Parts: sequence; structure tokens; C-alpha cells
Amino acid sequence: MQNKYNQLYTEYTTILRNAADNNYAAAVLGWDQEVNMPPKGAAIRGRQLATLASQAHNLLTSQHLETILKQLADCEELAANEKNNVRLSLLDFEKNKKIPAAFVEELTVLTNECFNCWLDARKKNDYTVFAPYLAKMIRLKKQQAEYYGYEKHPYDALMNDYEKGATVAGLDPVFKRIGEKMPILLNKIKNAPQVSNQCYHLYYPKQQQWDFSIEVLTKMGFDFEAGRQDYSEHPFTTSFSPCDVRLTTRVDEYNFASLLWSCIHEGGHGLYEQGLPEKEYGLPLCEATSLGIHESQSRLWENNLGRSLHFWSYFYPILQRKFPQQLESISLNEFYKGANRVEPSLIRTEADELTYHFHIMIRYEIEKLLIEGSLQPKDVRAFWNDYYKKYLGISPMDDKTGVLQDVHWSHGSFGYFPTYTLGSMYAAQFFEQAKTEIPNLNIEIANGQFSSLLSWLRKKIHHSGRTYTSNELAIAITGKGLDADLFMNYLDEKYTKIYNL
Amino acid sequence: MQNKYNQLYTEYTTILRNAADNNYAAAVLGWDQEVNMPPKGAAIRGRQLATLASQAHNLLTSQHLETILKQLADCEELAANEKNNVRLSLLDFEKNKKIPAAFVEELTVLTNECFNCWLDARKKNDYTVFAPYLAKMIRLKKQQAEYYGYEKHPYDALMNDYEKGATVAGLDPVFKRIGEKMPILLNKIKNAPQVSNQCYHLYYPKQQQWDFSIEVLTKMGFDFEAGRQDYSEHPFTTSFSPCDVRLTTRVDEYNFASLLWSCIHEGGHGLYEQGLPEKEYGLPLCEATSLGIHESQSRLWENNLGRSLHFWSYFYPILQRKFPQQLESISLNEFYKGANRVEPSLIRTEADELTYHFHIMIRYEIEKLLIEGSLQPKDVRAFWNDYYKKYLGISPMDDKTGVLQDVHWSHGSFGYFPTYTLGSMYAAQFFEQAKTEIPNLNIEIANGQFSSLLSWLRKKIHHSGRTYTSNELAIAITGKGLDADLFMNYLDEKYTKIYNL
Repeated sequence: MQNKYNQLYTEYTTILRNAADNNYAAAVLGWDQEVNMPPKGAAIRGRQLATLASQAHNLLTSQHLETILKQLADCEELAANEKNNVRLSLLDFEKNKKIPAAFVEELTVLTNECFNCWLDARKKNDYTVFAPYLAKMIRLKKQQAEYYGYEKHPYDALMNDYEKGATVAGLDPVFKRIGEKMPILLNKIKNAPQVSNQCYHLYYPKQQQWDFSIEVLTKMGFDFEAGRQDYSEHPFTTSFSPCDVRLTTRVDEYNFASLLWSCIHEGGHGLYEQGLPEKEYGLPLCEATSLGIHESQSRLWENNLGRSLHFWSYFYPILQRKFPQQLESISLNEFYKGANRVEPSLIRTEADELTYHFHIMIRYEIEKLLIEGSLQPKDVRAFWNDYYKKYLGISPMDDKTGVLQDVHWSHGSFGYFPTYTLGSMYAAQFFEQAKTEIPNLNIEIANGQFSSLLSWLRKKIHHSGRTYTSNELAIAITGKGLDADLFMNYLDEKYTKIYNL
Repeated sequence: MQNKYNQLYTEYTTILRNAADNNYAAAVLGWDQEVNMPPKGAAIRGRQLATLASQAHNLLTSQHLETILKQLADCEELAANEKNNVRLSLLDFEKNKKIPAAFVEELTVLTNECFNCWLDARKKNDYTVFAPYLAKMIRLKKQQAEYYGYEKHPYDALMNDYEKGATVAGLDPVFKRIGEKMPILLNKIKNAPQVSNQCYHLYYPKQQQWDFSIEVLTKMGFDFEAGRQDYSEHPFTTSFSPCDVRLTTRVDEYNFASLLWSCIHEGGHGLYEQGLPEKEYGLPLCEATSLGIHESQSRLWENNLGRSLHFWSYFYPILQRKFPQQLESISLNEFYKGANRVEPSLIRTEADELTYHFHIMIRYEIEKLLIEGSLQPKDVRAFWNDYYKKYLGISPMDDKTGVLQDVHWSHGSFGYFPTYTLGSMYAAQFFEQAKTEIPNLNIEIANGQFSSLLSWLRKKIHHSGRTYTSNELAIAITGKGLDADLFMNYLDEKYTKIYNL
């Protein structure tokens, strides 16, 4: 009996790993596309990626796999990690099975059209070019939600693709708190004297910025024997296995902040990927919990550490020695305050740690209303601009810096945005907990020692892969689910000091 | 009827192109492995490559494909290019079918072991470590030759993998001529005053060398919108489609020759790949004729152009302006002669245009004798060292610079080496023909104009893919098959002038 299950489990892992080989090969092609590919390579690269995706899909949706999974699901003899893999694979299988192949095909074709239309609309700086395609996309996403099924709100079904268990019922109160509390804090900050971040906008030569970023990543614990950093237009992290994790970043010689936090942010993602258990390669336990938890890792390093006074107590003297001309007259405190300057702006990806969440809240509201049908695609621009006026006090002058700024909708990624805010909140919650469990953590950080923290993150988060949902993980680590107030208090406390509120 | 064949042909191209997508994706992973991959990525990269290879193999050996091919082979209605694709795919299929899957598996496993053993033997600088694995490899290669079948010599069957139609009966006379004629020329050169290549060994900064290589490649007509150049330990060219061709090179700041000719050589390979017809992607007509013809393209650019006085008439003044300190006192003629210095040496990849072919002749003799069983693997070192003494007048001091220098045997690539010599001979033959058909070719070259030549190569060689065998191609272009004497005369004439013989 045991033997039969061993054999079945091996067969299961073979199928899953072959699918993973296709998906990771596609990741290599995707990384190369962003980092290296010459322009004429695009068309055929597209078909190569499609072939790999379809091979992975065929492996993961075969009836043969279903038969194996159902037999394994009944087996008591499996070890705990094996049971978890089987349980999660069966959930994935059943979810995938709900979507007819013809629909997947239709969605793939539309996504491609919709993305190209978005590029075109951006070039023309005209949302009305994009709106009809967005309408088609919404129609399909509603259909997809129906296929998946949901208890209360169709948007729940879509969010589930990125954050298992996330619901409108759970998120509405979170964004309501943000909408109530954050404007009060923002208002106080607006009335206080502004801090300067001018020192970030001096001339910092590219190579020296790059060298510093490598030094920071190395200190953080990023393993350059199992990963690397390269340039790309938009920073991202991708992984070909826990042993080969690729970060990308960009450099602006007149904006040191651009490289600095994108590199620490991507480094946080990269550490998570490197911490997933290699022995579970290709199986759910070698996958990240959710996008929200992934983002918690990048934001913990970027914000809770990377914009903290302790972190810079260690790194700032090093930085000053590297850039004496630019920084010798700037104190640590000024540099730190500059890293935390709050200023409402139009572009989400350039927003500070506080106003960032208004950008997300606005997108969350729009997505929810679009999917439930109470907002029409043609009206999104007006809604967007009104909301920006209301929460950030500024309105976009055009669509490129407004409603057309993000690629997500053209990709059909509805339900993705909320994970950014969830990530920040989980980050604050995890970091708070880490400080109670590693008594001298802040002192260690101020000494450039990150290994206790990294070990803690490895043990508490990275090593468990997808074993828990994000909510289960938060409870396991901190004794409670998502705590929006903890995040709000963290911001309150931080900015009260920085702006002397 | 027509319609049925159209549909079948489409089905055929879909299978072939899906297989190509897997093989080209593997090429991206292979390129990344050499150019970018961090060391810990190796193990899982290996399994990803194996999965892609096996998916391609399964597509190309399915009974379904055989059925389609056999139906298409009987169809008169197909266009000429379609008929050629089908004919060649059927030949490939029938060849592959001769090899049992279990044998492919056994060979794959042994190749991996044998390669690792070769690395180990090199580290230990001891051929006796490698000999037993080479013996196992020979046993399998003999078996493979039996599976393929052959008329006269088992080595013919193996050469066919790289150069369709190449036989011992055809090559013995070629290498006999080399063994007779070249030592006479070499002897004359040895008795003449040696030319100096000292100017190549001054200090040339890496970035400036790189910039010059890009300038040369651009002038040659390499399309950087459809390809790129990167660094790697061993220079190579790989292609992900005619629209994305990757060259790699290396730089030695105290040996300018290292980058210079490897870049022009790989550029020649790259121009061939960029010239294959994109519309035949994944089909035989978008594949190179043979390794020999591929090598003819790299060597034509590297030697017939890149080591010619006309070529440097254009580039040398540019080079002098780039490196005035190193080159201002060196005349064009001295630089040109330095590029053609003949000096017997132990390492094949560093050999000059003349003695290179002794290296190949020795390997050809050894491979032939090993496969026919008249030389035992344990005796290869002694045979090697004797032959080097006889033809090059020097004997290796150790195995690393002797019998263990090439990776080919550890890969099981028996029959590959002769294509290097064939390439040089075809190159001379094609270039001779090009000069008769493009009357002012040498003047154009001396003016840095390579477009007539490239167009001629495109039309005569690149665009036809695998339509012809190398012998058929030579006849179609030059009116005769391989002409070893033409090559020997070319060398005679060239070195007579350079060395005032």
C-alpha cells in the first residue's frame, strides 16, 4: 500500500515539476525579453512563450493528473509536506477546471489586444481609445468570476487569483479606515514645514550607485551565487528556482532614490524567492504564499528597514564616504527625513509610504464597481480624476499621468492592486513581531547585521511556501489576522517624529 | 484534395514549430547559462533543459508526425519549398527512428558522466582518468553507427550527424593532400625570417576593444536590432530565431587578437543565422545546411576577409586613431603580417590559418581509428603526442595542453572536427567565386563596403537553408564539389607573399 502511494506521489511530482520546468523556462525567456532581447526578437519570442505556457497548462489540467491527485488525497500515509502539496495541487486543479479551454483562449487573445491598445492609448494620451477594450475585458473578467463562483461579491473570485481568501467584505473596512484616518495624518503633515529631499537629486554617477546597491543587497543577505541584479526599464524580480533569482533595477543619475529603494524592494522579493525550499521545487510548497505576502517581504525591507533611522545609522556613513561631495554637509537625520518626505503626487509608483495607499484605495474602489457593474468603463476617467482631487488634492492634467498609468487592467489583472496595501500592512505587522522576538533587532540593524532578521523571516515565512493562506500565516506568526490599525499607528508614530507633529 | 494537403501541411508545420520553440527556448537557457547564470543555478537549469529537450524529442518522433509526413510526401501539389521541408523532415524522422529511446537515454547519461570525468581529468591533468570513460563512449558511438547504418565505414554514419554526405572515402584524400602539401609550405615558412605580432600584445583597454568589435560587426552587416554580443568564457554563437542571434566573445587586454578574430568569426556565424528565411521558422529550410557550411561563413569573414590586406586597408586607419599609442609606429603591412604569423603550437583554438589543419587532421585520424577499432582509447595519448611531433614539430608537456584540450569527445561529438577543415576549404572556394561574380569586391572591401558580399552570401547560401547538402551547394555555387587544392593554392599564394618565400 505504502509503495503504491510512493509511486503515485513520484508520478505526481514528475508532472508538476515538468510543468514548472516549462514555466521557469518561460521566466528565463521573459527576463531575457526585458533585460537583453533585441527589438526584432519580439514576435517569435511571443510564440515561444505561448508554446511553453500551453505545455505547462496541458500538464496541469490532464485527467491523468486528476486521477492521481484524487487517489493521493485519500492517502493517510503521506508525510505532512506531501499532504500539503497534494491538497494545494488539488485545489489548483479544481479551480483551473472551472474555466473552459475556449475561454482561456479568448482571454489570452483579448489580453494581447487590450495590452497593445493600452500602449496605443498611452501614446495618444487618450483614455477614450482604451475604454472600449477595457469594457470587453470587464465583460470577460465578470464571466471568469462566474466560472470560479463566489459567495458574496464577484470581485472576491478575482482577488482569489492573487490573494486566496481576500474578500470585499474583508477589505472594505480596511480601505474605509484608510479613507478616514490617513487624510487626517496627511493634513497634519501638509500644515507642518516640509522636509527636504534635495540631496537625493544631486549627480550620482551610475556605476557608483550600482556598486552601492550591490553592497546593500549583499549585506541584506541576498546570495549572489544564487542570483544576480541587472538593469531593466521597470524594476522587477523573477525566479528560475530558489537557486537562481534575478533582480532588476534602474538608475537615474539625478535621482538616487530611484535605484535605492527599487533595489532594496526587489531585494526583499528576491530573499523570499531564495528562501523557498529547493527540495520542493515545482510543487506548491516551493511557491510563495500569496502576492500580499510577497509584497510584505519587499516592503518590510524597503520601508520598515530601508526608510528607517537604524538602517541608515549603519549605511549612511558608508554612503557619505562614497559620495563625499554630494553628502558631506548632509546629516544622517536630514538624509533620513528626505527618505520619508510625504508629498501627494499623481504617479503610484513614485508615491511615498503614506499617500501610496490612496492610489491603491482609488483603484480598489474602481475595480470593485466595474466588476459589480455599478461603474461603466467610459466613466472611469472622471471617477479617477474626482477621487484624486478628493484624496490627494491634485488632479491629473492628462491620461498618461492619470487613468492610463498602470499596465494592470490591460493585462486583465483585476484584484491585484489591493495586494500592495495588504503587503504594507503585513510588513508592519511582521516587523513589529520580529522586534518582540529578536530583542536587539534595532541595534543589530544599526550595526548592519541582518542575519537574525533574515533567519526569522526564513523560518516564519519563506520556508513554509504555500502551506498557509496569508491570513493563517499572520495568525501563526503574530497571533492575529490582518491588523490595519497597527499599520496606521506605525505611520502615525513615524511621521509624528519626522514632521514634529 | 488541395485543401486536405494544405491542412496536413499546416499540421506538420505546427508540430515542427512547437518542437523548435522548445529547442530555441533551450538555446535561451543555454546562452543564459554561459553568459549570466549564477553558479548555484546549474543543477535545476540542467533539469529544465532536459525537460525542454525531451518535449522537442517527443514531438519530432511521434507516430502522428510520421503519418502526416508520409501522406505529404506523396503530394504533388505542394510548392517547392514545402516539398523540400517535407522531404528533409522525413529524412530526419527516419534517421531518428533508427535509434531506440533506451539508447538515447543511455547516451545522455554517459555523456553527462563523460563530460564531468573530462573536467576532472583536466583538473588532474591526467588522461588515464578519462580513458575508461572515452572507451565507454566509443562503444556507444560504434553502436550508434550500427543503428544508423553505413555503406563503407562506421565513421561515415557519425559524420553524417554534422555533415550530410561526408565519408572517409571522400575525406581521406583531402587530409592526405594536407599531410603531403602543408608540411612543405610550413617548412619554407620556418626557414624564412619570422614576422612579428608583438603589436597585438600591447595593452588594449577592454572597453575600447569592445567598442571596436561592435564597429566591425556593424560594418559587416550584423543587425543589432536582431541580435547582440556579450561576454562569455568561450566565444560562441547561438540563435533563438533569425531575428534574435547572440554572439559571445572574450577580451584579453594584453592580446588584442583574442577578441578581434573571435568577434569576426562569430559575426560570420551570426550573419548566416540572421540570413535564414524567417518565414520558414522551425522548418528545415530555416536551418543551416551543415556544420561545414556554417563554418565556411565564419571562416570566410575571419580569414579570407579578416586576415586580408584589403580588409585592414579600411579598418587599420580607424584602429590606429583609436589606439594611437599602441599602433602609430606600426605600418598597415606590419599589422597585416602580424595577423598572419605562422607558428606551430599545441592548442588548436589558438592556431594560425595554416597549422590549424594539422590539429584537425590528427583528430580526424584518431577518431577514424577509434571508431573502426584499430586504435584503443588507452593508446590515444601516445598516438596524439607522436603525431604532434611529426606534423608540428612539438609535443605536449602535459595532457591539458595535449589530448585533453578539446571538449568534443566528452560530449560524444565524433565526426565534428572534420567540419572545421571543410569550412575553411568551402570558405576559400566561395570567396574565390564571389570575387569573380562581384568584379570590384576587393576594392569594395578596402572601402569598408561589405553589402555586395553579404547580399551574395545571403542569396547563394543563407536563404536556401537546408535545401541542398554542402556538396550540392558547392556545385550550385562554384560548379564543382569540394576543392582542396584551391584552398592549398590560396594558402601558398598568401604565405609566399607574406614570408617572401
